Amino acid sequence: MIIVKIGGNIIDDEVKLSSFLKDFASIRGKKILVHGGGKLATKLAGDLDIPQKMIEGRRITDGETLKIVTMVYAGYINKNIVAQLQANGCDAIGLTGADGNLIRAHKRAHPTTDYGFAGDIDEIGIALIKNLLNRQMTIVIAPITHDKNGQLLNTNADTIAQEIARSLSPEYAVNLIYSFEKSGVLLNADDESTVIPSIRPDYYEQLKAEKKIFAGMIPKIDNAFAALRSGVQQVTIGKAEELQKLIQHTAGTRITNE
Amino acid sequence: MIIVKIGGNIIDDEVKLSSFLKDFASIRGKKILVHGGGKLATKLAGDLDIPQKMIEGRRITDGETLKIVTMVYAGYINKNIVAQLQANGCDAIGLTGADGNLIRAHKRAHPTTDYGFAGDIDEIGIALIKNLLNRQMTIVIAPITHDKNGQLLNTNADTIAQEIARSLSPEYAVNLIYSFEKSGVLLNADDESTVIPSIRPDYYEQLKAEKKIFAGMIPKIDNAFAALRSGVQQVTIGKAEELQKLIQHTAGTRITNE
Repeated sequence: MIIVKIGGNIIDDEVKLSSFLKDFASIRGKKILVHGGGKLATKLAGDLDIPQKMIEGRRITDGETLKIVTMVYAGYINKNIVAQLQANGCDAIGLTGADGNLIRAHKRAHPTTDYGFAGDIDEIGIALIKNLLNRQMTIVIAPITHDKNGQLLNTNADTIAQEIARSLSPEYAVNLIYSFEKSGVLLNADDESTVIPSIRPDYYEQLKAEKKIFAGMIPKIDNAFAALRSGVQQVTIGKAEELQKLIQHTAGTRITNE
Repeated sequence: MIIVKIGGNIIDDEVKLSSFLKDFASIRGKKILVHGGGKLATKLAGDLDIPQKMIEGRRITDGETLKIVTMVYAGYINKNIVAQLQANGCDAIGLTGADGNLIRAHKRAHPTTDYGFAGDIDEIGIALIKNLLNRQMTIVIAPITHDKNGQLLNTNADTIAQEIARSLSPEYAVNLIYSFEKSGVLLNADDESTVIPSIRPDYYEQLKAEKKIFAGMIPKIDNAFAALRSGVQQVTIGKAEELQKLIQHTAGTRITNE
């Protein structure tokens, strides 16, 4: 089965998103799409004069910001993706972690930083996922979770993709794909031709030591290795426009233990 | 099985909504909740300087307004209701009509008024509803549908409740409840003690002829009679705070053919 995370600027680009969804809809077999939020939430917060605070690339989710991300991620983005997949003959169903208790999380506890309503994942409800996949449905997940006590939480979409892949890997051979606007992990962040075809743990350590990896990529690659360690078969990072090639391993960066 | 429509000011009142959801969660057996939008969408449109046009109590849904209602209904309201039901031990799953192709609709064609992206219902996907109900899940429906060609549409929540009740009535004895801030259909709109206990078709015609029914109630009662004509067993209109009594027919207005 295939789990695709779609994020970055693709979400904000109507034409590219639509073309990606057409490609995604045409994938046969069991599949799950996890989407990020793009810049729409930041724009809406700006229009509403709600100041946004970011620490190390992560949004600090105060109460008003939680309201905004819930509206944008679970409402606007999720339902537009579902409607487009349905139009492409793919029987999509859009869910957050609260729906069917799909992803239970807890409010992040951090010794020095208050991330607000940011959720770290405790448990994935795989029974519901399996039921829907067995009904030939495609699950589209928005990066909102809950704590089972009534509190919604904002949760990193890369981590959701990784945790779902991990929890399904005992029963499925999972192919996890992180797709975004770049062609893969690049040796030179400004040069799309410098894609690293595959990264093993020792090479990753070397690249990090030599500071050759763009800082924003590190959490994504860490997530990828965590997924591999927990039994996910394949993890690939690459360009959303090359989805078919990413699935066939003829593009992007393959994260591998071998 | 029980289908409850919750609307009106209850949605905007955190304390009342929370108390209603506790009552709803405690209902045993198969149940569906259909919610309206309250005044949050109007407020958000105001904050964003997007002018709202209403004709006969119906919102004219232009492109920007569709974006707002999708965010507010399918995102903020739906997911907060789901999270609260989950906290009350009720395994809720929040869906729009696009999810799993649950409600296919078409853009309203009207000879003189352009309602914009308003959707009139064509078909209910009862297979998915039955599957989820049989898994002891509670479906929470936001009043957003789609046309299966990628277009989301804004659809009246009373009508959604009625159409779902109708489509399930061949297989279930459906008890349909329209709950809102008033105690039922009132003879005097300003006096909560003037609840009409039951309305039959002939009495309804008489009340309308004598202009004794508040104009805003007429589409709701028309919906109720349409539901009865199409096989729904029981339809009751009443106060959200009296949900248990509405189920037991000891409060509210019963719409009946008998």
